[in-house]
Amino acid sequence: MAQIDLNCDMGESFGKYVLGADEQLIKFITSANIACGFHAGDPATMRKTVRLALDHSVCIGAHPGLQDLTGFGRRNISITPEEAYDLMMYQIGALLAFITSEGGKLHHVKPHGALYNMAAHDEQLADAIAKAVYKIDPALILYGLSGSQLIQAGEKYGLRTANEVFADRTYMQDGSLTPRSHHNAVITDEDVAIKQVMEMITEQKVSTITGERINLKADTICLHGDGKHAVAFASKMSKALQNAGLVLKGISQQISS
Amino acid sequence: MAQIDLNCDMGESFGKYVLGADEQLIKFITSANIACGFHAGDPATMRKTVRLALDHSVCIGAHPGLQDLTGFGRRNISITPEEAYDLMMYQIGALLAFITSEGGKLHHVKPHGALYNMAAHDEQLADAIAKAVYKIDPALILYGLSGSQLIQAGEKYGLRTANEVFADRTYMQDGSLTPRSHHNAVITDEDVAIKQVMEMITEQKVSTITGERINLKADTICLHGDGKHAVAFASKMSKALQNAGLVLKGISQQISS
Amino acid sequence: MAQIDLNCDMGESFGKYVLGADEQLIKFITSANIACGFHAGDPATMRKTVRLALDHSVCIGAHPGLQDLTGFGRRNISITPEEAYDLMMYQIGALLAFITSEGGKLHHVKPHGALYNMAAHDEQLADAIAKAVYKIDPALILYGLSGSQLIQAGEKYGLRTANEVFADRTYMQDGSLTPRSHHNAVITDEDVAIKQVMEMITEQKVSTITGERINLKADTICLHGDGKHAVAFASKMSKALQNAGLVLKGISQQISS
Amino acid sequence: MAQIDLNCDMGESFGKYVLGADEQLIKFITSANIACGFHAGDPATMRKTVRLALDHSVCIGAHPGLQDLTGFGRRNISITPEEAYDLMMYQIGALLAFITSEGGKLHHVKPHGALYNMAAHDEQLADAIAKAVYKIDPALILYGLSGSQLIQAGEKYGLRTANEVFADRTYMQDGSLTPRSHHNAVITDEDVAIKQVMEMITEQKVSTITGERINLKADTICLHGDGKHAVAFASKMSKALQNAGLVLKGISQQISS
Repeated sequence: MAQIDLNCDMGESFGKYVLGADEQLIKFITSANIACGFHAGDPATMRKTVRLALDHSVCIGAHPGLQDLTGFGRRNISITPEEAYDLMMYQIGALLAFITSEGGKLHHVKPHGALYNMAAHDEQLADAIAKAVYKIDPALILYGLSGSQLIQAGEKYGLRTANEVFADRTYMQDGSLTPRSHHNAVITDEDVAIKQVMEMITEQKVSTITGERINLKADTICLHGDGKHAVAFASKMSKALQNAGLVLKGISQQISS
Repeated sequence: MAQIDLNCDMGESFGKYVLGADEQLIKFITSANIACGFHAGDPATMRKTVRLALDHSVCIGAHPGLQDLTGFGRRNISITPEEAYDLMMYQIGALLAFITSEGGKLHHVKPHGALYNMAAHDEQLADAIAKAVYKIDPALILYGLSGSQLIQAGEKYGLRTANEVFADRTYMQDGSLTPRSHHNAVITDEDVAIKQVMEMITEQKVSTITGERINLKADTICLHGDGKHAVAFASKMSKALQNAGLVLKGISQQISS
Repeated sequence: MAQIDLNCDMGESFGKYVLGADEQLIKFITSANIACGFHAGDPATMRKTVRLALDHSVCIGAHPGLQDLTGFGRRNISITPEEAYDLMMYQIGALLAFITSEGGKLHHVKPHGALYNMAAHDEQLADAIAKAVYKIDPALILYGLSGSQLIQAGEKYGLRTANEVFADRTYMQDGSLTPRSHHNAVITDEDVAIKQVMEMITEQKVSTITGERINLKADTICLHGDGKHAVAFASKMSKALQNAGLVLKGISQQISS
Repeated sequence: MAQIDLNCDMGESFGKYVLGADEQLIKFITSANIACGFHAGDPATMRKTVRLALDHSVCIGAHPGLQDLTGFGRRNISITPEEAYDLMMYQIGALLAFITSEGGKLHHVKPHGALYNMAAHDEQLADAIAKAVYKIDPALILYGLSGSQLIQAGEKYGLRTANEVFADRTYMQDGSLTPRSHHNAVITDEDVAIKQVMEMITEQKVSTITGERINLKADTICLHGDGKHAVAFASKMSKALQNAGLVLKGISQQISS
């Protein structure tokens, strides 16, 4: 019986600013990536989001990003690998304090936005990020773009990794995401998105924008938490997966067959 | 044989900005309070300062402050107890990641600047701070102004506490520090400062600016790391204490008689 | 024919975070207080909000606050008068660049949140703030809590001032706002709020929570832009005032009778 | 009689952090580029540095940078041209308030660090920056790397431009600076640096690291204000230029021959 992890970025509110329907989305996912205060989130939001995840028995991941609240961590910053290591360490540690004090456990780490994308292609950045995760706890699971440098770096350090795929993004021939600047980067038809996810999970393949079918490992599916239809889509996706006989479970809770 | 702890604030550089002669001062102290990025310090500085303390077998303390880099954490901000709890948690956690990844151990927590001073008088803030420390690890030692609300809050949670006294500050009749706005708040004569410290350690008493001798518990002495003569004074103080037969040791390393 | 100014805080979005229904509210007000990046707002939001105000012929005010994005500028920070002067100068200047480059004109200045409240009571802070406004342009209008120290400081510098009153807040016997911690600080019944405003404008009086009727100068009415019913209430208030024969006009556009 | 402008970055202290020997360097330069709070500087430092420049009759320039205090504005951030326009506008405006309130006049604008370097090569960024300067005041002088895209963009908008050359940096065959990663990027021999400057001013040529002599326009020379020998070198450079019969004058103060 196939098992799959549904993850979503959470805890991205900041002070008076509210972002994302965390309290509703939490019901449909198995893993929550919690922002750590650099690209989004603040200490109070982190504590509350950790509590929310624990109350719903959802696996908790750290979601560290670049120090760029204005740009929501989506603008590349030419940091050194050492700077990447340090900002991972700082943010994961900050979240860990809230998790342990609330009686929980850190399950995984997934870099955010520009840090995630840079680490998908840049071997040295990927290495620094994987090293930081390993140093904090070798039992942590590293989430990264399916087949990317980040996944390879995690494997090099002996970390368990989770190849991440996206429901609402199209893929190019080399397995990378079609850049958001392209007109067909985003899949807006929910049924097409669900069909793509099913194909990725059950066949470990995806159809690219140029028509090929390529191999793609899918350990976890990313749902976007912002957007007007996020909650409805999460519900729909969750049901579609379960109707297809899939069991939704966090990576570490999956039973090996 | 009497034992005493000499502590100093460290890791207060930020990016390109250098503050404090950490590499020289570390030789004379037994405990280093490391800034955690809110009032001073940054991830890289935290990692390096943790490494420096470990290399010199100096006990490591977290030194969390208010989120006010412009004011160096010295301006009161009317935060709620819950906000105090959250910012303690966040900052201590961030430092902990660097400490454990470098193979060290967190020894104590000492709030910085305005947070320290507000917690000395405000029972609710003091409680929130002590609670955060307790939740992270009940074995941590809480540093606070000698005899203050913060010390009492720590005791309430069953934490080991360290009553802190100052070498270069004068005291008022109620045991509080003479505010810096007073003309005689700071002791500039090094010999007078050393004499005051000796009196505080050996007799647990201090002479106030109005002439009384009051009781004062002295578990740890704070040396200021900035200022032109900081290194020379630290050296002089260290020698004076040892010449008087005192053994310099971090709180947890002291042998109970 | 009586004239009145309706003002509203605007441009409080930040990066990806959206706050306030500026595009709808702008239709009902005569003056917009635009956040300047310290407590809320960012350069792009400032430019767009300036443009929005100009497109609707709404008078533009600078709305500088304390440097506390996490606390939305609502937490007191113990700044010196000189620091207040400097942060006013910096933020007003930043907004001015957008205003002049878009072909507009700065009409007034209204400090935000904790800075506004501290300046209402603290004579030295009030003086520093009025001085900064005066130095930037003696023709600017200073908005402050009706009858407060800030209004008096503005008058001392020869600035034109606008005594501000609130539609949805109750008043105490000394003319100050009932603190938000009180159970009856906020008026939730829209009709009561409108009635209070009418009384303040037409009779320059307000009924306090303890039942007295006190004198109160009302040059401008503050509408809150957040909250679910903000747009509907703004519309209702605007109509009620006009139905009562009042002309809605920015302070400088009012014709002296 | 040849005239030349000597400029230096100033006002880069932040809060308690002191950087640069501004009070000594100001005596040797003709133009001061004042940091505007994003990569360095704060409101109080801006006010004091403006005052310092006015007291020494030194031309004042705005020195806006990327919003990256941790990285001192030296790390590339993938901002859009519109974001560049907005951050220029914001920072220049903020400085302008201090300048006009102190009775001075803004003379020029020079982007800082990564923003300067990105604008040297990126036509769209250069255009956005030049446009922001033009919109604030078409009489402003735009400083940029000699012969760069930024200079060309300034000319497109009809701005007066100043081609900047560096005393202590080597040049490559295409007229760009040898990247700091190269072993011979920096000239440490002061006499060689002075010789290079003299060659650049009097012959409008420079010898590259690969041995060619290339054409290079030199309207202004940048002196670095940090570094142990900054003051001594500034003094030496100033004397050498005057001994060679050159007159040191800010760009706008130079008399056309």
